Amino acid sequence: MNKTRLEAFSDGVLAIIITIMVLELKTPESNDWESVKYIFPVLGSYALSFVFIGIYWGNHHHLLHTVKKVNSRIIWSNLNLLFWLSLIPFATRWIGENNFDKISVAVYASLLAVSGLAYYILQQSIVAHHHFTEKMKEAMEKQRLKGIISMFAYLTSIATAFVYPVISEVIFVGVAIMWLVPDKNIERAMEE
Amino acid sequence: MNKTRLEAFSDGVLAIIITIMVLELKTPESNDWESVKYIFPVLGSYALSFVFIGIYWGNHHHLLHTVKKVNSRIIWSNLNLLFWLSLIPFATRWIGENNFDKISVAVYASLLAVSGLAYYILQQSIVAHHHFTEKMKEAMEKQRLKGIISMFAYLTSIATAFVYPVISEVIFVGVAIMWLVPDKNIERAMEE
Amino acid sequence: MNKTRLEAFSDGVLAIIITIMVLELKTPESNDWESVKYIFPVLGSYALSFVFIGIYWGNHHHLLHTVKKVNSRIIWSNLNLLFWLSLIPFATRWIGENNFDKISVAVYASLLAVSGLAYYILQQSIVAHHHFTEKMKEAMEKQRLKGIISMFAYLTSIATAFVYPVISEVIFVGVAIMWLVPDKNIERAMEE
Amino acid sequence: MNKTRLEAFSDGVLAIIITIMVLELKTPESNDWESVKYIFPVLGSYALSFVFIGIYWGNHHHLLHTVKKVNSRIIWSNLNLLFWLSLIPFATRWIGENNFDKISVAVYASLLAVSGLAYYILQQSIVAHHHFTEKMKEAMEKQRLKGIISMFAYLTSIATAFVYPVISEVIFVGVAIMWLVPDKNIERAMEE
Repeated sequence: MNKTRLEAFSDGVLAIIITIMVLELKTPESNDWESVKYIFPVLGSYALSFVFIGIYWGNHHHLLHTVKKVNSRIIWSNLNLLFWLSLIPFATRWIGENNFDKISVAVYASLLAVSGLAYYILQQSIVAHHHFTEKMKEAMEKQRLKGIISMFAYLTSIATAFVYPVISEVIFVGVAIMWLVPDKNIERAMEE
Repeated sequence: MNKTRLEAFSDGVLAIIITIMVLELKTPESNDWESVKYIFPVLGSYALSFVFIGIYWGNHHHLLHTVKKVNSRIIWSNLNLLFWLSLIPFATRWIGENNFDKISVAVYASLLAVSGLAYYILQQSIVAHHHFTEKMKEAMEKQRLKGIISMFAYLTSIATAFVYPVISEVIFVGVAIMWLVPDKNIERAMEE
Repeated sequence: MNKTRLEAFSDGVLAIIITIMVLELKTPESNDWESVKYIFPVLGSYALSFVFIGIYWGNHHHLLHTVKKVNSRIIWSNLNLLFWLSLIPFATRWIGENNFDKISVAVYASLLAVSGLAYYILQQSIVAHHHFTEKMKEAMEKQRLKGIISMFAYLTSIATAFVYPVISEVIFVGVAIMWLVPDKNIERAMEE
Repeated sequence: MNKTRLEAFSDGVLAIIITIMVLELKTPESNDWESVKYIFPVLGSYALSFVFIGIYWGNHHHLLHTVKKVNSRIIWSNLNLLFWLSLIPFATRWIGENNFDKISVAVYASLLAVSGLAYYILQQSIVAHHHFTEKMKEAMEKQRLKGIISMFAYLTSIATAFVYPVISEVIFVGVAIMWLVPDKNIERAMEE
């Protein structure tokens, strides 16, 4: 059983998730700079979600690359991850519509936390059925560390959302930057 | 004539079906817990449909894996299946909007029944043009048994929808769980 | 320059075209049989368009299969075809909203005619750069004949749309059936 | 690390971008020729954006074809390009809704300029990690020249948008035509 269709299907779903968010962007009602300025926060939430989905796609790309055998457990862990990620456009629209209000920010943060957990479960399903080189294990360990830090950050941002939503947003950006810093280790490990 | 494009096209359609349902999710109107709670049944119908499409994708993956030659009959049986599955986002939205009312639940159940029938037709088109090993036949027989049980469950749920829609919903969840239990047989048969 | 991405991109666009039409389907306003019955014509126009896109996908599949070298002319003939097909969800929604009124039916018929022309242009771009076996040429000749008949049918249906739209609809169904009858010739020719 | 998924994901996103624009097309309110005529400018903006995305897809196809090794820098330059292109359906809808008014045209022009810049950055990320033949370098130089001309054209069109939006539109069409003229050089260079 090969992994080509698993990758193709995941690419399809992630490509749709990342793109349909733009359907939610409402065009400004009137044509003066005042209403145009109003777009920027909504555009910001779109950009943030785009980056998060992009990070997941990149990591998913690396993770699936290591897979040799696909079984039911991997298929369903993968669908579980895609399910939670598919709710991100919904949460993004909500944040935009509510102008980053507390509940919507808390829901967004929770969704990121659950998605992180789903990614961890997928990682474990793959690890359970594969043998890795030392280098590879080291690289995955580093990824897992980033995952744990992110999880703490998300949980903190759920709490801060009810007091100062802006702190949660800063945390989101911080987590995104942490993941964007290219991980030379995993790339080197995979090349070997 | 190879099956690569048949798989790619089906993956594309299934990926879109499973993802666009999230476009239907309406964000809560106000920002208090009362309106947020209101989301959960709608989210539940989305989750249920996500799982059903996921099950079809998994089974389709296994079924197409056995195909060696693609002909017009297989192409059109496949498009027939995709047509009925493409109506699931519509039925899901309907259920959500009507708060699981009888007619919408009956339509949803009918759609699942027709999709099951379409899957059976696709299976027959493939069987008609291929020779299988004993193990493979056995595994397919088991799948077919699950298919027949599902069909009876769907027909029952159409009837119960008019009296107690909640029973239909329990039946849907039950069928989903039956399919989610991984079928070790078909996996082993395909590895050989 | 290989054709893999041309096929993948076309499959993606066709998969989206065929699936997003379902987003246009409006759920019935109230929950009695009267409003449910009202869905059927809309559903009918969706089914018709689904079949037409399906036919194009099948023929495109066969046509691209014969391609060995992709050049700019083929790329742009292909994009031209995809452009016109991408308008079909728009025309389908229009027909549905206007309850098969004359102008919408005429626009739908014109779109089918232009798409047919675009397919012919793509076919010619491919023929100009490839050598075919006798069998293959014969099969393509038959396809071209079907294309010419369809073109006459579409032009007729534009005219009838203004008098009896129902005749145009019968013509659409007739053309679809003509294409659905599997063309054994082209399949045999391609296997050789 | 191979480039298959990078291409597949990009194809998916581009296919969705090019197709979802049709969801924005509003059907005419009444059924007389007056309201039907009203569609043409909106349809025109859709056609223009379709051609621009088509050009990007074609160039992306050629560019990625030269890639042998994918690294984080290429992945993120690519996602950056896809982000800006994903906003084109939004800008297209805006132009249509505002009947090609100045601010919407200026935003559209700016988006084309930023997308051009993002494409240039992707090109540089790829050039930095690959060795090319002389012929290939020459062909890429020509592409870069076209890119610079386009950039000047876009910047001009931002300015003209505030005075005579129609001039900006003529510039858009001019740029599209410049790119549509097939570049025999790059095709020949790639075949070698």
